[in-house]
Amino acid sequence: MQKIPVGVIGATGMVGQNYIRLLDAHPWFEVTCVAASPGSANQPYRDAVAGRWLMASPIPEGVSHLIVGDANRADQARNQCRLIFSAVNMKKDAVAALEMEYANQGLAVVSNNSAHRHTPDVPMVIPEINPHHLEIIPAQRKSRGWDKGLIAVKSNCSVQSYMAPIYALIKAGFPVNRIILTTLQALSGAGYPGPAAIDLVDNIVPYIGGEEEKSEIEPLKILGRVDGNAIVNASGIDISAHCTRVPVTDGHTACVSLEFKEAKPDLDEIGTIWRRFSGLPQELALPSAPKRPIIVKTEPDRPQPRKDRDLDKSMTVTVGRLRKCNVFDVRFIGLHHNTVRGAAGGAILTAELLQAGNYL
Amino acid sequence: MQKIPVGVIGATGMVGQNYIRLLDAHPWFEVTCVAASPGSANQPYRDAVAGRWLMASPIPEGVSHLIVGDANRADQARNQCRLIFSAVNMKKDAVAALEMEYANQGLAVVSNNSAHRHTPDVPMVIPEINPHHLEIIPAQRKSRGWDKGLIAVKSNCSVQSYMAPIYALIKAGFPVNRIILTTLQALSGAGYPGPAAIDLVDNIVPYIGGEEEKSEIEPLKILGRVDGNAIVNASGIDISAHCTRVPVTDGHTACVSLEFKEAKPDLDEIGTIWRRFSGLPQELALPSAPKRPIIVKTEPDRPQPRKDRDLDKSMTVTVGRLRKCNVFDVRFIGLHHNTVRGAAGGAILTAELLQAGNYL
Amino acid sequence: MQKIPVGVIGATGMVGQNYIRLLDAHPWFEVTCVAASPGSANQPYRDAVAGRWLMASPIPEGVSHLIVGDANRADQARNQCRLIFSAVNMKKDAVAALEMEYANQGLAVVSNNSAHRHTPDVPMVIPEINPHHLEIIPAQRKSRGWDKGLIAVKSNCSVQSYMAPIYALIKAGFPVNRIILTTLQALSGAGYPGPAAIDLVDNIVPYIGGEEEKSEIEPLKILGRVDGNAIVNASGIDISAHCTRVPVTDGHTACVSLEFKEAKPDLDEIGTIWRRFSGLPQELALPSAPKRPIIVKTEPDRPQPRKDRDLDKSMTVTVGRLRKCNVFDVRFIGLHHNTVRGAAGGAILTAELLQAGNYL
Amino acid sequence: MQKIPVGVIGATGMVGQNYIRLLDAHPWFEVTCVAASPGSANQPYRDAVAGRWLMASPIPEGVSHLIVGDANRADQARNQCRLIFSAVNMKKDAVAALEMEYANQGLAVVSNNSAHRHTPDVPMVIPEINPHHLEIIPAQRKSRGWDKGLIAVKSNCSVQSYMAPIYALIKAGFPVNRIILTTLQALSGAGYPGPAAIDLVDNIVPYIGGEEEKSEIEPLKILGRVDGNAIVNASGIDISAHCTRVPVTDGHTACVSLEFKEAKPDLDEIGTIWRRFSGLPQELALPSAPKRPIIVKTEPDRPQPRKDRDLDKSMTVTVGRLRKCNVFDVRFIGLHHNTVRGAAGGAILTAELLQAGNYL
Repeated sequence: MQKIPVGVIGATGMVGQNYIRLLDAHPWFEVTCVAASPGSANQPYRDAVAGRWLMASPIPEGVSHLIVGDANRADQARNQCRLIFSAVNMKKDAVAALEMEYANQGLAVVSNNSAHRHTPDVPMVIPEINPHHLEIIPAQRKSRGWDKGLIAVKSNCSVQSYMAPIYALIKAGFPVNRIILTTLQALSGAGYPGPAAIDLVDNIVPYIGGEEEKSEIEPLKILGRVDGNAIVNASGIDISAHCTRVPVTDGHTACVSLEFKEAKPDLDEIGTIWRRFSGLPQELALPSAPKRPIIVKTEPDRPQPRKDRDLDKSMTVTVGRLRKCNVFDVRFIGLHHNTVRGAAGGAILTAELLQAGNYL
Repeated sequence: MQKIPVGVIGATGMVGQNYIRLLDAHPWFEVTCVAASPGSANQPYRDAVAGRWLMASPIPEGVSHLIVGDANRADQARNQCRLIFSAVNMKKDAVAALEMEYANQGLAVVSNNSAHRHTPDVPMVIPEINPHHLEIIPAQRKSRGWDKGLIAVKSNCSVQSYMAPIYALIKAGFPVNRIILTTLQALSGAGYPGPAAIDLVDNIVPYIGGEEEKSEIEPLKILGRVDGNAIVNASGIDISAHCTRVPVTDGHTACVSLEFKEAKPDLDEIGTIWRRFSGLPQELALPSAPKRPIIVKTEPDRPQPRKDRDLDKSMTVTVGRLRKCNVFDVRFIGLHHNTVRGAAGGAILTAELLQAGNYL
Repeated sequence: MQKIPVGVIGATGMVGQNYIRLLDAHPWFEVTCVAASPGSANQPYRDAVAGRWLMASPIPEGVSHLIVGDANRADQARNQCRLIFSAVNMKKDAVAALEMEYANQGLAVVSNNSAHRHTPDVPMVIPEINPHHLEIIPAQRKSRGWDKGLIAVKSNCSVQSYMAPIYALIKAGFPVNRIILTTLQALSGAGYPGPAAIDLVDNIVPYIGGEEEKSEIEPLKILGRVDGNAIVNASGIDISAHCTRVPVTDGHTACVSLEFKEAKPDLDEIGTIWRRFSGLPQELALPSAPKRPIIVKTEPDRPQPRKDRDLDKSMTVTVGRLRKCNVFDVRFIGLHHNTVRGAAGGAILTAELLQAGNYL
Repeated sequence: MQKIPVGVIGATGMVGQNYIRLLDAHPWFEVTCVAASPGSANQPYRDAVAGRWLMASPIPEGVSHLIVGDANRADQARNQCRLIFSAVNMKKDAVAALEMEYANQGLAVVSNNSAHRHTPDVPMVIPEINPHHLEIIPAQRKSRGWDKGLIAVKSNCSVQSYMAPIYALIKAGFPVNRIILTTLQALSGAGYPGPAAIDLVDNIVPYIGGEEEKSEIEPLKILGRVDGNAIVNASGIDISAHCTRVPVTDGHTACVSLEFKEAKPDLDEIGTIWRRFSGLPQELALPSAPKRPIIVKTEPDRPQPRKDRDLDKSMTVTVGRLRKCNVFDVRFIGLHHNTVRGAAGGAILTAELLQAGNYL
């Protein structure tokens, strides 16, 4: 099988580097195109990231020599690849327009950016939860006049620590009414350079601009349904989030209290539901899919970011401390690797879904 | 005025050292007696803590030369002091019995330990909230057969970041129905040595044994009422706590969502209530009382432990990020210095209340 | 006594804020003038630093209301103060010219900046070591055509952890031949924001641009002598420095191995020399002078930044682990608070020297 | 090929766990025997480490079910394995005797412990430096009366960051005269639990008991020569070490200044020598051997522990910042992963050498 040529725009930033790292030796995709801001363009990738390559593994050989393109020139990417992973870091309007332009050029766009998360005909996909939202793509193409172009996006990283466990319960017949949660989020979620070291030594910061709103609103679309030209948000589920920043490199932790609507599973049932939970990526055995989307820890003090973030290729959600809630019904701790599952890895898994669904 | 002679038992541990530090140059109290485990006894205090004095300031001169007594010998303390601050670290039953023995000897005991927190006739005091619980002391003395002895305790440090703000609202006529909160707690709360460094580098631990139960139950007694021989817990207020450990030296942060029972103040009213909140310690101008029990920050990213824990002699609670809650009514962040306000400093303030109330 | 009006240029940055904090309630100086970049000018100081006030204590009331001036307008400062503390953060040439302009206007300039550290007629002063370098000021004024203007600078913060202990030995008759040292430097030394948090979690960075050169060269001028119009560097002492960045907020640590030229004091003599060491600031009892310039710790694991940086108003150098060196003669660990002793506090002490020496 | 059965004593501690992790799927060795203190014995390994398994990967299936033996019973291990990796944590004399007992029983012992490092007929091996020291084994066996038993040990982890780079220079014809260095050592080097978190937040500790002596003396044996029944220490090379503890999980950094004896290579030559350096493990392509024993980084701020410790299976030494020394000849930064290369991984590589040399 010939590999599908893919590109990364915003390839020199931290998320872009994660794409390059994770796509190295990917069985289906091959990075043939990297693009960044004009200031980084027109030089080999290795030179463009010299002194700011942040990954632990070296730059993959195949990408190292690619000449970096100008991310603003969607027309130039057109002949170099079939799908674009967007990790650009620009103003929201500019990103929205740029991603449209790539799709206009006939490319599939899978984006980490928040610009199109609430565009009604753009699916925001967590592959184990709402892969069927990709079914909107024919309508998207039709109304946009695209033949082969498409846009799909991933959600904010903060929601990933609790959405799979909560969805698993809903899917099992236990609708959720209300959720109050606090996240302890990793530094890498802020991009590079992110917070100053002097602000996170002997300290935490109980605030991340815009994060609480995303954590509360995005789940509604993810749990929504496709209705013709638009994805209609779910209703009847209220979420309140406190988002805090802690001195952890990778791995967002969420402390979650939830209330069921009617039927209330007991703790054993919940554990069983989570352990058995599986989705389309597992059914299709997609290359980046974790064996189990949810891993349940029974030690009293787990999950913990450094100890659990890398389980199953950093693509799983680890939960633990499942117990009765004194106010709502149950509470638990959820954890995921925010730059893999919550960013580049999750987007690659979505791209695999697109390929498996013949959207490419 | 002649100073009141006081003792510290468990004087060599971290909480004990905090007592020694905070009582240095106290206008009312003078440390005349220090006691610890038999292994530390019978040597000058400076030798007993050699190599494990954890305070930033040096050992106060007056205490440095005191010969450490055996904490198990309440009879020996009897002639040396009038009041004992208990910071012993033993099994719960042993502490309960030991503190009783000190009271039997005619000493006032103010304790950091949890052993007597739920003894019905022992007041658990946060000085700005329930100083009137000290009114149970005559009944305590009578039923115990004590002439001058008494026992009063402080609550767990974790509750201090939210109890003053919540009580201020209740007092202002806005009863609280339900609270869901997550704490991000400092290392010093675990005593010394506490958690291993290797477990808290690039990591947080979302579990502290026994802490969630204390955070949920103790507030009920604090908000309770004196009824003859017993303090009767408040009812009608439910609290659910997630307690986590973060790599911060001092300062517990709480992310709090709360629901009012009926009347719902708006955010401006709440800010005003907090800013105006004052208690008996302020009215009596007790030496350790902060000028304001609650400081309200309006910057979007405060309070933060390293930046706010030391406001007003480390004796105040700092709140911020007051905003609507998406599920309950309002949410906010609270912070206090856990080894000062939440431990030795809070106990000293309670002792000052005892003195001001003529219980000594 | 009427206080001397002083100004701070670069008043909104971290070093500038430290000046404002340390000069609050100073017995001799009063801040009457604050200036910063044009973008911060023409508004009250409290507004100019809103959201970026980094000190633990609040903005001093007296400064809070001052209207920030444009630091480029030395002429405007002229009538507002007698001395300027320079904490500007611009290109070296621009700083050099700007500080000259302030002196041209008749102001005494005491600078934290490196621009004039190697200008031959500008004294670089560590108050306990080379206060006599201020004697070059009449020559400086004469050759520059200044009546009342002057420039004095402080050295780089990295040298302060070892220069006082080394100078004390030289002064006591034990000339030093060679020094090899490694510094573990605090984040605040890099200004704000300084290094990214994600680079200093579970990590250290064994490199600080330009720092090793400063650590090796500046001591030569500090140990030099005034010769007419110029300060002539000391010779015959070689220093090699490895400078590293560690996740510490404040406090630079130095691990020092040194070789004497001829006479070699034993360890006891060295301890005695350090304990007895005192300088002109102590003799004059200057307001910011520590009681002892060097504190000797005998615990095996001290000094440590968090535990020792704040001794004696954060103005002392703490040394410990004095022991034989396996290669040179002796080795030790030195520590100082880099933003107080090593920056604003050291400059204020120099200003006090200038006042005591009638240079103002 | 049938795998060689090996055992791990002290299997439940952190170093023991690292052995279990690194030996999983080893091509030559299979863990068939685990032993620990009597308190942990007589239960499956998974139960013995329940709640204290510190590795990121799960307990290997094959070991999980092994019944833990009593480490004091060398006789019981005799029939279960051919080689013992010793990671016991007992008093030095007890370890020395215990390891002797295992060798008496006919087992090859490869030890992390310091007990036999200075036993004259016990080789202390860094596989790329002194594999020929294993040639003492026949003499060791003869004088001890062992048929198949043997003891070989690894050196202290602290020396690994600088010994390979220094040996490479010596081997290339540039004898080294003097070395002054400072290490910034990781927490895992102290075993579990090691230092308290509260001592390493906003702090470093410039002291590790006994570490400086080991860092100075062990290299002399490593660089020594086999002379009949004993390994004779090298002479003519002096080392002085400052050893400090920093809040890093894994990865020891060394800041090294060195003086050559006579011939002085220039910086380019040194870089070339390091890049070309290779040893017997590389020649024999041993399973755990890194491709290159030394990796040279040219970025100005590398190596760094979190970014470089895991290069080449965590088995390489990374060097950087090679530059002239202002006092000696050259200086550089060296880094290695202390619990892999510097502990279990290095010992496994030594065991591979033993197998390749037909000592098993």
